Amino acid sequence: MIAFDEIGQICALSPSKIVLLVIDGLGGLPDPKTGKTELETAHTPNLDYLAKRGICGQSDPVSPGITPGSGPGHLALFGYDPFKFTIGRGVLEGLGIGFDLVNGDIAVRGNFCTVDAEGLVTDRRAGRISTEKCAELCELLKRVKLDGVVLFVKPVREHRFLLVLRGNGLAAEVADTDPQKTGIAPYVAVATKPEAERTAGIANNFVERAKEILAKQSPANMLLLRGFSKLPQIPSMSEIYKLKPAAIARYPMYKGLAKLVGMKIYGVDDGIEEELRILAACYREHDFFYVHVKEGDSAGEDGDFQRKVKVIERVDAALPQLLNLKPDVVVVTGDHSTPAMLKGHSWHPVPVLLHAQWCRPDRVQEFSESACVSGGLGRIHATDIMPLAMANALKLIKFGA
Amino acid sequence: MIAFDEIGQICALSPSKIVLLVIDGLGGLPDPKTGKTELETAHTPNLDYLAKRGICGQSDPVSPGITPGSGPGHLALFGYDPFKFTIGRGVLEGLGIGFDLVNGDIAVRGNFCTVDAEGLVTDRRAGRISTEKCAELCELLKRVKLDGVVLFVKPVREHRFLLVLRGNGLAAEVADTDPQKTGIAPYVAVATKPEAERTAGIANNFVERAKEILAKQSPANMLLLRGFSKLPQIPSMSEIYKLKPAAIARYPMYKGLAKLVGMKIYGVDDGIEEELRILAACYREHDFFYVHVKEGDSAGEDGDFQRKVKVIERVDAALPQLLNLKPDVVVVTGDHSTPAMLKGHSWHPVPVLLHAQWCRPDRVQEFSESACVSGGLGRIHATDIMPLAMANALKLIKFGA
Repeated sequence: MIAFDEIGQICALSPSKIVLLVIDGLGGLPDPKTGKTELETAHTPNLDYLAKRGICGQSDPVSPGITPGSGPGHLALFGYDPFKFTIGRGVLEGLGIGFDLVNGDIAVRGNFCTVDAEGLVTDRRAGRISTEKCAELCELLKRVKLDGVVLFVKPVREHRFLLVLRGNGLAAEVADTDPQKTGIAPYVAVATKPEAERTAGIANNFVERAKEILAKQSPANMLLLRGFSKLPQIPSMSEIYKLKPAAIARYPMYKGLAKLVGMKIYGVDDGIEEELRILAACYREHDFFYVHVKEGDSAGEDGDFQRKVKVIERVDAALPQLLNLKPDVVVVTGDHSTPAMLKGHSWHPVPVLLHAQWCRPDRVQEFSESACVSGGLGRIHATDIMPLAMANALKLIKFGA
Repeated sequence: MIAFDEIGQICALSPSKIVLLVIDGLGGLPDPKTGKTELETAHTPNLDYLAKRGICGQSDPVSPGITPGSGPGHLALFGYDPFKFTIGRGVLEGLGIGFDLVNGDIAVRGNFCTVDAEGLVTDRRAGRISTEKCAELCELLKRVKLDGVVLFVKPVREHRFLLVLRGNGLAAEVADTDPQKTGIAPYVAVATKPEAERTAGIANNFVERAKEILAKQSPANMLLLRGFSKLPQIPSMSEIYKLKPAAIARYPMYKGLAKLVGMKIYGVDDGIEEELRILAACYREHDFFYVHVKEGDSAGEDGDFQRKVKVIERVDAALPQLLNLKPDVVVVTGDHSTPAMLKGHSWHPVPVLLHAQWCRPDRVQEFSESACVSGGLGRIHATDIMPLAMANALKLIKFGA
């Protein structure tokens, strides 16, 4: 991929507009009964129209064979090398619940767990306590006060919570206390670099106080910490691409990821139709729009093939709202595949279509995994999508004389 | 791409011969009236014959979405990473007019411009004066003599000229004096590294003297300098590939680029037929031949779809001359796309065909952008073409045991 300082030198301001529509978990696997994937099963006249007039292909969010999390999947789509720009687990947990992390914060992912009388871990997830119970325990932990640091403990889901340490001079180089197995005691937090020793000490003090508070609780009577991390230092999309980018998304994680790369966030409470109404409303103010549809991934994760089909059909039915705006470049893809057959993210490349006046159309007649294999884009890295979108929007000048 | 020290270790001498035929600006876009590109419109029985028996694909000269200049486009075809080996604007201008740059020379691209009574730039190109006028002004500037340095001022085209500073201990780390906008004075040349301070001083002395000489001229009464550069340090193709490479080309830029990588230059005054006669004449003396056809790009830049079609047909008609020599490997491609529809270089991948006894033929039946999408080479980086040509010529031994 081209480096930021190189692409930065060839980005030019122009009034053209790019829409990147991300159907989360878009790629699928065929239902053995029909031989068709979710996308191939769905009735998608509008996506097929775009595919016919545009150019298609397959994209690897991270690298062939690698199953991406939502962080790397999205960063790659925004043009950021997912190997170079990594987001710690703690930070991702914070983004996921919409916690407003500030620079310098140490975010940590916590598990409530069960320990026996000797303090050895017997269940790392405390039997997956309910989210309500998790919220109660987080409330109890508000009692913990430590010198020189402000603490935040927020429930996430089931046994998972977010711990944030806010203060001066904190460092994230602290190893997990989660031993990743049962039958042994949680580890003491250890600094992996000298500058993190104070932070490790604070974490240990927090754990000690929390242990006393949780001791009488059941089944969750202890906690484990992992993924100590800070907000990554990421150049913004405006710095790199000279864009005024907007994100239109419903769920905190995606708004958080978009905020990380400097997009202006437009939250919505409902589906794609509302997102596209917002898109129309803010269309003049921006030149790049990331529109996120979460439900494809959720249906895939639930193994609900038919629901994923319906999600794709709902997006397709709403597409005319988008096309009426006549964006110069429309890209439709996913941040990764989530085949209902696998009930989870997968390594399969993601179908991608790009529609623009100056694309070189291929022979693809429909938007589907099988058809995209023969598309003119070939098999690309997801990080190539932004340069391709920029080029097709005539926002890139020549590289070298 | 494989690094030079790695491929260098597996290159073997052999009598086999490789011909790299570069149709400049080969790739195109379909004419909306016919749905066919220039290459698809052209009648090309010989190229189709090679495509049928060979293997095809698409190549990105620099990176997907990136529009290459001629420098990066050609370096990539010769196997050089265009991000690592960059050619400064001044040097490229020198190559373009066939100026014989020597190591240590500082080449600079100059613009004759117009300044007002206060010395503020009013037109960065002085109304694009004629090339004849440019030559006159360059002649006047011959009067400038400076201590410790030999100066060359050569007309290029319209308002553009080449300035070369020749002397000991010169350095190219000097910022442009071209402010890139009107309404302000030209910048003073500033060294960006201490070792270039003397060079910046020489440049400023030159500008002062030139200003006096040009003061009474109109409309070009001043000059702007940009792209201070030296010949890049590039290992030769003989060092890397153990080849004895020859370049057969008509235009100075391409002879210059070929000379940069150590090819022996055979100039021609006419088209592809003469180039192929020269190829036959020097066939015994070399094992690698780069044959350059400029006219495809020129027609594309002029937006002349039909002329580009004719250029491709003329190359096709001449091909038997080449095939009669029975080269072990023939590669036909471009250094970038220049769609007549866009009247300029573009980011679209370039069709490539490789014909050799040991290639693995694919199902492609004709040489065209659409057909190449399904070719056995897939979508490759242009820097992979040289290793593929070398391999098909059986000039590469095994990598690793």
